[in-house]
Amino acid sequence: MTVLEQMGVNAKAAARTLLTAGELKNKALLAIADALVENAGEIIAANELDLTAARENGTRAALIDRLTLTQARIEGMAEGVRQVAALPDPVGKVLDGSVRPNGLKIEKVRVPLGVIAIIYEARPNVTSDAAALCLKSGNAVILRGGKEAINSNKCIADIMRAAVEKAGLPKDCIALVEDTSRASSVELMQLTDYVDVLIPRGGAGLIKSVVENSKVPVIETGAGNCHVYVDKTADIDMAVSIINNAKTSRPSVCNAIETILVHKDIAEKALPAIKAKLDEKDVTLRCCERSAAILDGVESACEDDWYTEYGDYILAVKVVDSIDEAIAHIAKYSTGHSEAIVTESYKAAQKFTDEVDSAAVYVNASTRFTDGGEFGLGAEIGIATQKLHARGPMGLNELTSMKFIIRGDGQIR
Amino acid sequence: MTVLEQMGVNAKAAARTLLTAGELKNKALLAIADALVENAGEIIAANELDLTAARENGTRAALIDRLTLTQARIEGMAEGVRQVAALPDPVGKVLDGSVRPNGLKIEKVRVPLGVIAIIYEARPNVTSDAAALCLKSGNAVILRGGKEAINSNKCIADIMRAAVEKAGLPKDCIALVEDTSRASSVELMQLTDYVDVLIPRGGAGLIKSVVENSKVPVIETGAGNCHVYVDKTADIDMAVSIINNAKTSRPSVCNAIETILVHKDIAEKALPAIKAKLDEKDVTLRCCERSAAILDGVESACEDDWYTEYGDYILAVKVVDSIDEAIAHIAKYSTGHSEAIVTESYKAAQKFTDEVDSAAVYVNASTRFTDGGEFGLGAEIGIATQKLHARGPMGLNELTSMKFIIRGDGQIR
Repeated sequence: MTVLEQMGVNAKAAARTLLTAGELKNKALLAIADALVENAGEIIAANELDLTAARENGTRAALIDRLTLTQARIEGMAEGVRQVAALPDPVGKVLDGSVRPNGLKIEKVRVPLGVIAIIYEARPNVTSDAAALCLKSGNAVILRGGKEAINSNKCIADIMRAAVEKAGLPKDCIALVEDTSRASSVELMQLTDYVDVLIPRGGAGLIKSVVENSKVPVIETGAGNCHVYVDKTADIDMAVSIINNAKTSRPSVCNAIETILVHKDIAEKALPAIKAKLDEKDVTLRCCERSAAILDGVESACEDDWYTEYGDYILAVKVVDSIDEAIAHIAKYSTGHSEAIVTESYKAAQKFTDEVDSAAVYVNASTRFTDGGEFGLGAEIGIATQKLHARGPMGLNELTSMKFIIRGDGQIR
Repeated sequence: MTVLEQMGVNAKAAARTLLTAGELKNKALLAIADALVENAGEIIAANELDLTAARENGTRAALIDRLTLTQARIEGMAEGVRQVAALPDPVGKVLDGSVRPNGLKIEKVRVPLGVIAIIYEARPNVTSDAAALCLKSGNAVILRGGKEAINSNKCIADIMRAAVEKAGLPKDCIALVEDTSRASSVELMQLTDYVDVLIPRGGAGLIKSVVENSKVPVIETGAGNCHVYVDKTADIDMAVSIINNAKTSRPSVCNAIETILVHKDIAEKALPAIKAKLDEKDVTLRCCERSAAILDGVESACEDDWYTEYGDYILAVKVVDSIDEAIAHIAKYSTGHSEAIVTESYKAAQKFTDEVDSAAVYVNASTRFTDGGEFGLGAEIGIATQKLHARGPMGLNELTSMKFIIRGDGQIR
């Protein structure tokens, strides 16, 4: 039996204990939060090893920043765990129920998924964040973080495992894969006997690789090629404000926009106003022929631009003849994350929300709101861009399954 | 572009039309039902070609029976389609909603999945059955049936496509893969650009192959290694009745049981009574050492028996020391389909329903009730034995996804 298989066996056994752990889960979460703060010095020392290696490898500053843990950041991680503890327990909720004509009482109840594996990159805060969400929803978790954060992750995982055990649950509710080679990631994707669901968290490359190679069912998260469509009836000031916010408030995140589609009847007025605002943040515009004819000092867009998630201060711009053309463009190029229409027309708003098939469809608001916290889900493990099981921001409910419980008094069929 | 890719493009376009098809879907379903009956002669003639080939290949009688279409069976298929038309439309249902502190109005609404592919074996009635469920739930469907039924399937699919078109929807809402080679099945499993979900319907071999090879997300259905646990407090008459029903009323189906687990304190009384009843149907018992010591004329069970879905008049029998041992046995060997406890103990019933992690967990009733119709779902596309998206009998709701619609008045973040 390989190290990972043994980890799978242990996680599955721990998951059975978690089925009926009830309030012990919260006790364990609070113990984790306390232990993270108490052992902050140890975590910072381990993190220093990762930071030294990163600096020696010439890692760029943005990545080093994500990797860095400070006293304040560790307290933030602990606070995040406490917030998860304070959320209502999703397990056991009766989702539906009926009494059948033969007297069978049928209930559909929420249960944990079982064992969840998370493959992620170099953000050590994900280690406590993901573990807390999985534990709260009654799942054992196998964490497989990036090699850049391995010393930090090992230290955090050890602290969490000890805290879970002290609270009276099996320490194998949380496990960390210490082998950060590609092989361990590949093996995890084949562990169908032990792992119920695999959730990749990270960049597009990581997610694509997991989706294509995993035999374990995957919840796909993250990629966001999002659009704002400026309808011919749009309030131009509102369009400018929404586009500016959706592009420039945080360009690197998945709910930022990458392309705007502007109705031809409003393009001559709207485009210069939009450009003037975006110029304040030096946003590069990649324009179709018709928008380039209206604007000065812009680049030309090619077919690839419509597909690209820039994650940067770049925005593709296209003039469209109709709302139908806008919807068709989104259907073709979007990753199905978040799209918005800016319009004063009731009919256009209805049409857009009916016909655009993305996880979040907005009327007159910024796509930047696609987020578990903003949607009131309390916490978020990621944003699903697929259609099975979960779509959009995933909270604790999305980390659960359900089962039917049927109570009878001897019924046969 | 291959034939299947073109089929995918067409299905995706048809799926967009279906997003807002509303009542046209019912019109199309009723047109299909009428057309099936009107063209019954043509279907029977096509079916005769399949039957002749099957007889020439020495196909066994049970399979030939499944393959055979008669006037009555075609009328049954049409009636099934009419029943689906009469069900409430799952699309558009508001599942949740709230107004956020910033004034954003968020709604979570049910939407179609998009394009569903169904891979199935030699039952031509699945062709109309699956198409009707997909169409009703607003999905385009790509059907890939077994080669044994290809002439029947082509005829049925042509009739359905013509009926859908006559009703005013694109005929590509329904498509049949005419190439029944393994290659077409493999290609379908890679068609991630066009197919949103793949549902295999058929035997364990087919399902395993699809689950292991598909890059398209799969809903796993069907395999049922189901158990009845006879608790020490069980009413023996009830246990006999439930076990007899669950084993012998239809041994080939997935909700039939394969193993019984009997508490040691009741084994000496219960086992002879169970055997006496099952002897009436010549059920072969494969017994553990302790049960073999109680019963005469039984076979010995080996480790493999606990894993086997016999689908036949064979039942594995094991004496257990406790309810915990029964639950552990189920956790190890079950496929997670349906399990039952027979007990008069409140505590044992609670423990069993809390700790057994299968799609359907019964107290004092036969596992044979695990079925969409019996659960009141109105119709069923299969029984999911996985934990993501759908679990247990899948009705129209399980053929849908959801999206968030967010209405604002200019909110930015």
